[in-house]
Order: sequence, then C-alpha cells, then structure tokens
Amino acid sequence: MTKRYKITIAYDGTNFAGFQSQPHQRTVQSVLERAVNKMSKKDEFIPIFGSGRTDSGVHALGQVVHFDFPHEMSADSMLKALNSMLPLDCVVVDCEIVPDDFHARFTTHGKRYMYRVSQSYFVDPFKRNYTGHYKYPVNLEKIKAALPDVIGTHDFTSFCASGSNVKSHVRTIYDATVRRDEVQNELIFEFAGSGFLYNQVRIMVATLLEIGRGKRPVHDFLRLYEVKDRNEARETAPASGLYLKEVYYD
Amino acid sequence: MTKRYKITIAYDGTNFAGFQSQPHQRTVQSVLERAVNKMSKKDEFIPIFGSGRTDSGVHALGQVVHFDFPHEMSADSMLKALNSMLPLDCVVVDCEIVPDDFHARFTTHGKRYMYRVSQSYFVDPFKRNYTGHYKYPVNLEKIKAALPDVIGTHDFTSFCASGSNVKSHVRTIYDATVRRDEVQNELIFEFAGSGFLYNQVRIMVATLLEIGRGKRPVHDFLRLYEVKDRNEARETAPASGLYLKEVYYD
Repeated sequence: MTKRYKITIAYDGTNFAGFQSQPHQRTVQSVLERAVNKMSKKDEFIPIFGSGRTDSGVHALGQVVHFDFPHEMSADSMLKALNSMLPLDCVVVDCEIVPDDFHARFTTHGKRYMYRVSQSYFVDPFKRNYTGHYKYPVNLEKIKAALPDVIGTHDFTSFCASGSNVKSHVRTIYDATVRRDEVQNELIFEFAGSGFLYNQVRIMVATLLEIGRGKRPVHDFLRLYEVKDRNEARETAPASGLYLKEVYYD
Repeated sequence: MTKRYKITIAYDGTNFAGFQSQPHQRTVQSVLERAVNKMSKKDEFIPIFGSGRTDSGVHALGQVVHFDFPHEMSADSMLKALNSMLPLDCVVVDCEIVPDDFHARFTTHGKRYMYRVSQSYFVDPFKRNYTGHYKYPVNLEKIKAALPDVIGTHDFTSFCASGSNVKSHVRTIYDATVRRDEVQNELIFEFAGSGFLYNQVRIMVATLLEIGRGKRPVHDFLRLYEVKDRNEARETAPASGLYLKEVYYD
C-alpha cells in the first residue's frame, strides 16, 4: 500500500538554516519530516528526499521532494494534511502520487533559479530578506550582451564556491535572462540548467552586475571560463535574492 | 543652532514591538533614538516624537517623527547619517528642517492607512508577515457598496478595541477605497481620516470582509454606529496587513 508522493513546496528561507537537516538547526527538511512523520506510526520513520540543497536564507517557489508513505491517502488529502501541520513559512503547492522509480534528486534533469536585485539607493526594509541589493546604476544592455556567454556547456570552476568537492565543474546552462521591473526598481535574473555548482548562481549574478556597472568587460565570462580561478570572480551576491523556481523531470 | 528635523520613515513592523518605546523591547522609537543620540554629546538626550503609535507587527510606509538637533547638519546629511546607523528594517525616506512650531503628533490633521488582504487558499509563505489572510471568496461589489457608510463623521465605538481610554469615539473618515490586485490575488483597502481609534482600521477591515462574504448585510456599519458595542463587530484583522501610509500636515 506504500506509495511515493512527489510534493512541490514554496518556502521563505529567511528563518531556515537551509534545506538539509542538521543537528540543532531549523531546516526545511526537518520541518517536512516532522509533519510527514506525525502521520506515521511510532516505530516507522519516513525520510524525505529533496531535489537538492538550498543555503540558509535562500528561498524556493518550486522545490521538489519525495517520500514513501505506507498508509492510504489521496494526493489532495496529503496536501491539505501537510499544510495544516507545516509552519507558515513553508507551504505545499502541489502533491501527486508518482511511480516508484521517481526520485526527487536522481531523476531531475535540470533546475531554474531566479535572482532578484533591488536597485534602490537605501535598502528597502520590506525587501531586505527577499532581494539582493545593488545601488549602483547598471547598463542593462551590457548584461544582456554578456548572457549568451553564460548559455551552453562550460567549465564553471571560477563560479564555484571553495569548499565544494564535486568531481566536475562542467555544467550546461540552457537559458539565462534578465529584465528590469520598473515598478519594483529591480533586476530579475533567471537561469535554467542541467545542474548548478555551489553558489554558482550567486557568483554569476555578482559578476554580471559588475559587467553592467562597467567594472568588467562585457565578455569577461569567456576569460573566467579559461582561468578556472574562483578568486577572479570575487563577489557572491547574497542568499536573500535567490529563489529555486522550478525543478525539471520528464 | 538647534533645529527641528521632520523625518519620514518606512519600517517592516515584523520584528518590532510596535512604535513606542517600552522597557526591554525593540521598538521603532528606541532604534531611532539610539541612532539620533549617537550623534549627540554625552550629557544630552534627544527625544523623538512620533505622529502616533503603531502596534507590534504593523508596518509603515510614511510614519513621521520629529526631533530637535543641537548641532549643524543639513537635512540630506541627516538622512544619510541616520540610514547608515539604523537597522535594515527601518529606513528614513525623507528628511527636512521645519519651523519650531511643527509637531509630529499635535500638528497632524490626518492619516492614511493601507490594509492588504491575501486571498490565497493557503497562506503564502512570502506574505505571512505582510498581509492579512482571508481565503473565503468575497463579493467586491458588496464591499464597495458598504464603503460610503464608512466615509463621514461617525461614532466608531463599535470599532474601537477595548482597553482604549480616549474621551471621544467620534472620528471623521475622508476616504475609503478597496481594489482587487489580480496579479497578487489581494484586496487592498485604504482609509484616510482625521484620526483613528485603537485597532479601528483592523476592525473595520474584518467587518468589511464579512460583508463581502455575505455574513453581514451590506449596510451593517449603520447599525454598528448605533449600537456602540465592540462585541457586535467581533473580529480584528491581523496586524501583519496594516500599513501606516501617510501622515498629513499643512
């Protein structure tokens, strides 16, 4: 009777120590596991598998997790039951019962991230946890001219935070866009790709902002792919502006 | 050389125990006084006067305060100096030097409040601190039909939270509007008036939502003015949706 549930969740990352469970920390995984296991029997523990981690302060609009639930429950009932138990900074937006070979992490073939940059001179108190902040004027055309360099398969070593120990730094970006939201006075970046290295989006955004400000040449990404040196990209945009928007499956 | 400074501030009320200083509490007044007094001499204390209180969790887009500063400083320098010292959930948006007879509280002749109501079925994690939440469908035309009853001079006893000890419950509302923001799935109320009783806007919004849902007759405000009974209005919309938008002076 055990069935696999795929749930799509949104969360405000401000008060979470990231996605992944850690001792003595409030994480998204731990609040989800607590909610799911309130509906299980005492001698069973139902683990939650996420599509991947998000850092402390990073948000999600469409993070995906799965778990195996051994009691009969419709997808709609599961959605409502979880939302009645989850804290208000994490909500289930979709729930479906999926085949047993679905795996939130191992069957994904890509992700989409959004990054919001507030351009106000002083930090807007209502955006301090929900955007990055860059008060300097940027030339949007320069950033748009740089974005084709981001798309494609590249060695992103210069854009990978130290401390990461993945084997390969080669990733493929399918889509990279930027637009200006005049009403909100924000720049909105989006990146879709096969996978992303640790802090890759935040380092790419910081580099693109420097290109827009004229502190780097427009095609500096091409040089950074060559030098494979994290110190050359330097800045990392803050976690507060980053949103995991979508996780792709077949 | 002492000059009076009028400053307009915006704050995210989530992490403040309201506007007014209280022992052992983090309030807007206390963070402002701390910032201003960092620029004063040791033996002087410069008090801050606000246009009025806001409750814990209530936000401001245009709260006004004044203080007397005994050292030479331009309005623009004051604005930048304060913003360099204030925490990120409170920002000075405007600063001007005003005549000595200006008083943030005693020379105001009105205020404007905004109230945001999220209509999503489940609470949106990104709006939990920034809107009220009302998942029930409401008939906007009914609310619009009730709003003319709000405008004018009325005895708002039914809309005043117990614990208030003002002499008169008569207030004048100049303007009362509602609109639906389809993109955000929100109802946005605005009220401008000569002054407001404790919790008046939040009780009025809760009553208007019940009118929109069909749980009260459209013209129930007229009855509530007559009965002068707080228990008849019952509900109070949460602090999280309320914004002090503007304070009016001549």
